[in-house]
Amino acid sequence: MRLRLLIQYDGTEYHGWQLQPNAPTVQGALEAALSRIDGGRRPVHGAGRTDAGVHALGQVAHADVVHERDPETWRRALNANLPLDIRISAVEMATNDFHARRSAVGKLYRYRVWTGEVLSPFDRRYCHHLPRPLDVAAMRAVAARLVGKHDFRAFTLTDRDTETSVRTLRRLDVRTIEHGVEFEAEADGFLRAMVRSMVGTLLAAGEGKCAADSVESALATGRRVQAGATAPAVGLTLVRVDY
Amino acid sequence: MRLRLLIQYDGTEYHGWQLQPNAPTVQGALEAALSRIDGGRRPVHGAGRTDAGVHALGQVAHADVVHERDPETWRRALNANLPLDIRISAVEMATNDFHARRSAVGKLYRYRVWTGEVLSPFDRRYCHHLPRPLDVAAMRAVAARLVGKHDFRAFTLTDRDTETSVRTLRRLDVRTIEHGVEFEAEADGFLRAMVRSMVGTLLAAGEGKCAADSVESALATGRRVQAGATAPAVGLTLVRVDY
Repeated sequence: MRLRLLIQYDGTEYHGWQLQPNAPTVQGALEAALSRIDGGRRPVHGAGRTDAGVHALGQVAHADVVHERDPETWRRALNANLPLDIRISAVEMATNDFHARRSAVGKLYRYRVWTGEVLSPFDRRYCHHLPRPLDVAAMRAVAARLVGKHDFRAFTLTDRDTETSVRTLRRLDVRTIEHGVEFEAEADGFLRAMVRSMVGTLLAAGEGKCAADSVESALATGRRVQAGATAPAVGLTLVRVDY
Repeated sequence: MRLRLLIQYDGTEYHGWQLQPNAPTVQGALEAALSRIDGGRRPVHGAGRTDAGVHALGQVAHADVVHERDPETWRRALNANLPLDIRISAVEMATNDFHARRSAVGKLYRYRVWTGEVLSPFDRRYCHHLPRPLDVAAMRAVAARLVGKHDFRAFTLTDRDTETSVRTLRRLDVRTIEHGVEFEAEADGFLRAMVRSMVGTLLAAGEGKCAADSVESALATGRRVQAGATAPAVGLTLVRVDY
């Protein structure tokens, strides 16, 4: 039977999603829990490999299990075997053609920046602290250039990927929140570190260090925007995966 | 010069407020930071000794320092020398008759309970998880009996205190929030573990295990309410100290 898992996690204590031999990862914790319950190694396939320190409100994964249990029993058993910073929100039975990554048609990420002078201790694990005034209009101008179907290879960390780096960014919202700004990015898919790369560019624009034009040329040439560093993982959350 | 500090902290990693020789405490971290900046041991006096795991949005403390700096410089220097889970929100110069504990005329505490089945990983450090339906009307009935000027010795952990255990509980609000309930308690002062003790009693009432009458008799006799255990520290936050 194939299980479809809806997962939330506080990524602070993990070296990202992907299994690593000698470091705690979210996939590793899930596989350990599932294998313990089902009595044997059970690989867990996630919709996206979140980086170290990145959080999730709605990560999706699938796994094939041997023992029959109803979804509610699976959910309880998994949560009973997982640390409190990883929770299974829901379990559904899926057909064998469901694949958490390949069946996904879209993803939504959120990025939070705390611009106030004193970062709240209660938000320090979930916000990037940048105590400077940011020009929201300038960030929105850059965001508008990024939205659409583009080759985003200027906005990824490595070019090891042999697959296409063309993605359709459906929206990239910039909004002011209490003590800071929040970005929401929705696309058919994201390249590695693409959200943090775009956020770094938006923040550079917000500080007056990057004009909307240079983003246009980065998209055209595939060369990284000089001003746009990759924003830290701490502010990033995978909100939703769409199927 | 006397400094008055407004402090927020995530108490999860601390063995409470009060200085201990071999365990991290909030007072210990503050004294270490202050002593490093001012060049010598500088005791820090807090308004209230929060227990291990208890948080603060508005703890107040005072300390006498030797070097002259403006309040803003003190705030920055302190935050630069403190871990990220303790932050100084504000520094003011105080007169020598200001005493964080003795000058306080009131305190406000908040307690959060997550009643949903799956505790959010993002709230696990700040909510007590009790995944059961709670009778809000029953809790409000008990809360109404507790409000007022009473001898609260039935609602404290130890009777080592020689001082009076009479306190005036100005309000004890019970409100439903997303995924749970929140209590707010305001009084001229609180005995040790008094909020958690009252919350334990309220939760017992919410589960139908404690009638409002037994609270009345606990107040009259000073004997602890049998049903009311002390609620865990995780849900408690010192919101404000009034002067």
